[in-house]
Amino acid sequence: MVGPFGGSVAATLLRAALEYQERLGDPLSVTVNFTGPIGSGRFDITARLVRGGKSTQHWYLELVKEGEVCANATAVFVTERQTWESTEIQAPQAPPFDEVPRFPKVPGAQEWLNRYAFGFIRGGLRALPQYENTRHDTSETLLWVRDEPPRPLDHLSLLALSDVFLPRLFVRLQQINALVGTVSLTTYFHAGQSELDAQGDRELLGRASATRFRAGFFDQTAELWSVDKTLLATSVQMVYFRE
Amino acid sequence: MVGPFGGSVAATLLRAALEYQERLGDPLSVTVNFTGPIGSGRFDITARLVRGGKSTQHWYLELVKEGEVCANATAVFVTERQTWESTEIQAPQAPPFDEVPRFPKVPGAQEWLNRYAFGFIRGGLRALPQYENTRHDTSETLLWVRDEPPRPLDHLSLLALSDVFLPRLFVRLQQINALVGTVSLTTYFHAGQSELDAQGDRELLGRASATRFRAGFFDQTAELWSVDKTLLATSVQMVYFRE
Repeated sequence: MVGPFGGSVAATLLRAALEYQERLGDPLSVTVNFTGPIGSGRFDITARLVRGGKSTQHWYLELVKEGEVCANATAVFVTERQTWESTEIQAPQAPPFDEVPRFPKVPGAQEWLNRYAFGFIRGGLRALPQYENTRHDTSETLLWVRDEPPRPLDHLSLLALSDVFLPRLFVRLQQINALVGTVSLTTYFHAGQSELDAQGDRELLGRASATRFRAGFFDQTAELWSVDKTLLATSVQMVYFRE
Repeated sequence: MVGPFGGSVAATLLRAALEYQERLGDPLSVTVNFTGPIGSGRFDITARLVRGGKSTQHWYLELVKEGEVCANATAVFVTERQTWESTEIQAPQAPPFDEVPRFPKVPGAQEWLNRYAFGFIRGGLRALPQYENTRHDTSETLLWVRDEPPRPLDHLSLLALSDVFLPRLFVRLQQINALVGTVSLTTYFHAGQSELDAQGDRELLGRASATRFRAGFFDQTAELWSVDKTLLATSVQMVYFRE
């Protein structure tokens, strides 16, 4: 995987908007484009309120390093209104987190992987720790995940969590040496603060899949469910790959 | 539905980037945020190449009217590379376009609806022309759609087509009088020019669904397949609603 964890870049951009006093309500959707390599070292974020109303705000953000834009984002914030409510998709069936083996610490892996506790139910990497180069029929993954150490869920950590799913190419081909990098990530928040508070620091149930791999890119869709089976967020990203 | 057809706004923004001489390759993903009412009359589009490399470009676009940003967009362009290829999702089964009744012309409906030929296979509006106020269990729609009059498919018309699905709220509740408006739309292109050329001006198979309706917003996911069952585009949008 190229560069720092995309979820932390996304959360850092969103946080910049959240810290403005004129920011209104909670995030509804965030799109982050990874425009260039970030690496380590100092960066600046510029945030601009593109358009704001009484109940909706649109922000545009850029992460700039050494004069180059390394990521940009659009973010929509809204105030909550009580309306008719319905969840159409079903939460996946899953054994409890405590009954699922933890994903082992991988020597040499990127540090962000150690900042989450993962429990793969299906679609993990048989590659680790004993690597078997066997292709799967599908790239679908179902897993439990939570921050490590545990911390109460907020919109920032939920955004980062929407990017914790391994690249679908790794799962489908059981090939972890391919070069991959997210190009564009969009996350939709389906939960307000009260639902995040109800989840607290417990584990989330996540499902990820892909629709098409082609011409050096694939997409990756994710769902994040609370432990009580409330849909908290959905996300889609387009990922560059080179086998 | 509030304002002009979002698909035409999105395509107009994308076209602005496409017309720049320095633009490289084909669109991979486009996010459009509908930041304010557009209405009719003159507008300007500003386009900025945020970051460009040898094989990828990131653009930022704004549609400005009377000094206000009414829509903005980020767009990623890439050059094609031959790689491993696979489509993981199945194309829906559907009777041929010619055997599906055309959606009737609706008096008083927005003109853009007349610019497409629709054939609903399931999840249409029983509301029209004979309105029945019966709620569906799901908002899923499967339909055939093509430009009317027919025209060869390109990335612009494919982007517009990704927004032709009626608001899922209308289908789920069979309630066409709700106030709805897309807030943010992201479309992923899974096809290159050769696959668009192979499709030509024939009908596309489209499927749309929702995951969650809540607090005045719902999401809407769409797939667009060629008549030969190649996945051409996927799309997600977040939509404002007031019952």
